[in-house]
Amino acid sequence: MIKVGIVGYGNLGKALEGLIEREESMELVKIFTRRNPESIPHEKIEAYDRLLEYKDQIDVLVLAVGSATDIPEMAPEIIIHFNTVDSFDTHAKIPAYFDKMNKLAKENNTCAFLSTGWDPGLFSMQRMLAESVLPQGRTFTFWGKGVSQGHGDAVRRVDGVKYAVQYTVPKQEIMDHIREEKRALKSFETHTREVFVVAKEGADTTQIEQDIKTMKNYFDEYETTVHFISEEEFFANHQKMPHGGHVIRVGDTLGENKEVIDFSLNLESNPEFTAAVDIACIKALVRYQKEKAYGAHTVLDTPVLYYSGLDHSEAIAKYL
Amino acid sequence: MIKVGIVGYGNLGKALEGLIEREESMELVKIFTRRNPESIPHEKIEAYDRLLEYKDQIDVLVLAVGSATDIPEMAPEIIIHFNTVDSFDTHAKIPAYFDKMNKLAKENNTCAFLSTGWDPGLFSMQRMLAESVLPQGRTFTFWGKGVSQGHGDAVRRVDGVKYAVQYTVPKQEIMDHIREEKRALKSFETHTREVFVVAKEGADTTQIEQDIKTMKNYFDEYETTVHFISEEEFFANHQKMPHGGHVIRVGDTLGENKEVIDFSLNLESNPEFTAAVDIACIKALVRYQKEKAYGAHTVLDTPVLYYSGLDHSEAIAKYL
Repeated sequence: MIKVGIVGYGNLGKALEGLIEREESMELVKIFTRRNPESIPHEKIEAYDRLLEYKDQIDVLVLAVGSATDIPEMAPEIIIHFNTVDSFDTHAKIPAYFDKMNKLAKENNTCAFLSTGWDPGLFSMQRMLAESVLPQGRTFTFWGKGVSQGHGDAVRRVDGVKYAVQYTVPKQEIMDHIREEKRALKSFETHTREVFVVAKEGADTTQIEQDIKTMKNYFDEYETTVHFISEEEFFANHQKMPHGGHVIRVGDTLGENKEVIDFSLNLESNPEFTAAVDIACIKALVRYQKEKAYGAHTVLDTPVLYYSGLDHSEAIAKYL
Repeated sequence: MIKVGIVGYGNLGKALEGLIEREESMELVKIFTRRNPESIPHEKIEAYDRLLEYKDQIDVLVLAVGSATDIPEMAPEIIIHFNTVDSFDTHAKIPAYFDKMNKLAKENNTCAFLSTGWDPGLFSMQRMLAESVLPQGRTFTFWGKGVSQGHGDAVRRVDGVKYAVQYTVPKQEIMDHIREEKRALKSFETHTREVFVVAKEGADTTQIEQDIKTMKNYFDEYETTVHFISEEEFFANHQKMPHGGHVIRVGDTLGENKEVIDFSLNLESNPEFTAAVDIACIKALVRYQKEKAYGAHTVLDTPVLYYSGLDHSEAIAKYL
């Protein structure tokens, strides 16, 4: 049994809890929170301050906390004592974060699986694979159809908006003719944005629409549609957190021949899928720990075999 | 420079030749043939009998010969002297082949990359990845739209057929609603077959059509369409070898949520894409050789980093 702990109890932490309980090879030991643990009526909740008391009872700790600031602060302290899986996703800061965690993990005989999930994560791996197989070509990343939390937050700050959700939608007609694209395209060329708004009573919807569509960095360059809907419709149809996307490589082989690799995700629950990837990485981490391959690991340097929990000969017979 | 040799000069060998010549890090040394080398006017053609004379001039040898019988006969002799890449694709025999090649390679300090290409190969890897991330769910493999050489051969044996090509076509409506499928589906439920025939003069086309549609194992269970076309149309529109397909995993996460991973290939040239995968595997093999990781390797146990030729820190900065 792999004994697992979770740090953080938001959307990702809850998804991890549900999926780990379903895994026959895993046991959930504790969920650590920085909130007052008494405020969360749950037998497995424990105060984050008491984490170190569980050092010998936990094989892998998943850091399901905010990526931007919490992970880079907390992970270097935690890796001294525990093996960790995290989803640190500030692309530009990943190399320095990798070096720091790698050094600390090697010094302390622990293993870290860094920056996993779907992007960075599976999408990173697929981009690298596709560009390695087809070195001459163009790579396109499409996002969605999915909820963009950041854009939704921005819309909710507009005067007169009561509730709002924003969907990022890839342009199907560009995807359908991606072979013909001669250059990589900008995000606003390949996506539209759809906003569903519940306006406050008496609000000026024309003004709201204009405020949204002209919002710098968020919407101004995009083809944006704003739909005003009722509160009932909002709560009936816009509460899910779907997401997904495509990594597409169009490669030139010989003559005029083009070969297309398309890796796509279509997710009804973004946090549950991220949790599913984390759990596969827990299995890889246990394997690294057994091999004494101390240090930091990523999706780029991990064979798919490691995520499966199968031994080598079972894997060959089943999958090759 | 990686010095590469090719054994075999059919469609795959020719595609390898063209793509290797484009690779800055590779040099094509010789192409070995079992035919009379004088029958092929090409400066790099050499008789297969003289292979051993090139032992010290070649880093990796790609076995671009028939998979079913040539590879299992030739590869165990070649691996004693050379590092090899092959596409052995008889699924049921791969485990025994792996064990044999692994033992010979370890004994002779060589490395073999086995059973690569797209299936077995990239599709194997993606099936394993998707099932590891989403352990509860259903996996579907769709083939095509693409030319099936075996089915084309079978049609050409029908009385009255002059030329013929067979396309395997996945049913789009099933792919579009794959989330709702409660069980894995049989190949004839998910594909149709389209046959384009040039009939011999005076042949009975009704009889040809019936002979094709009722052919056991090949067509009888499938929804099959037979088109009779002119010789001109056949040579104008049916000479390419497109192929491709999808590996789709529909995973159940929590509640009723479903998450879909779809890896697809859309290939204008099947042999050129297979050659492109082989070339990525040559890069991995050189890395294994440098690490003295002698033995047999596959897509299941190879990190994507190894295919890229990049070092670890470049890879992290570029892809993660």
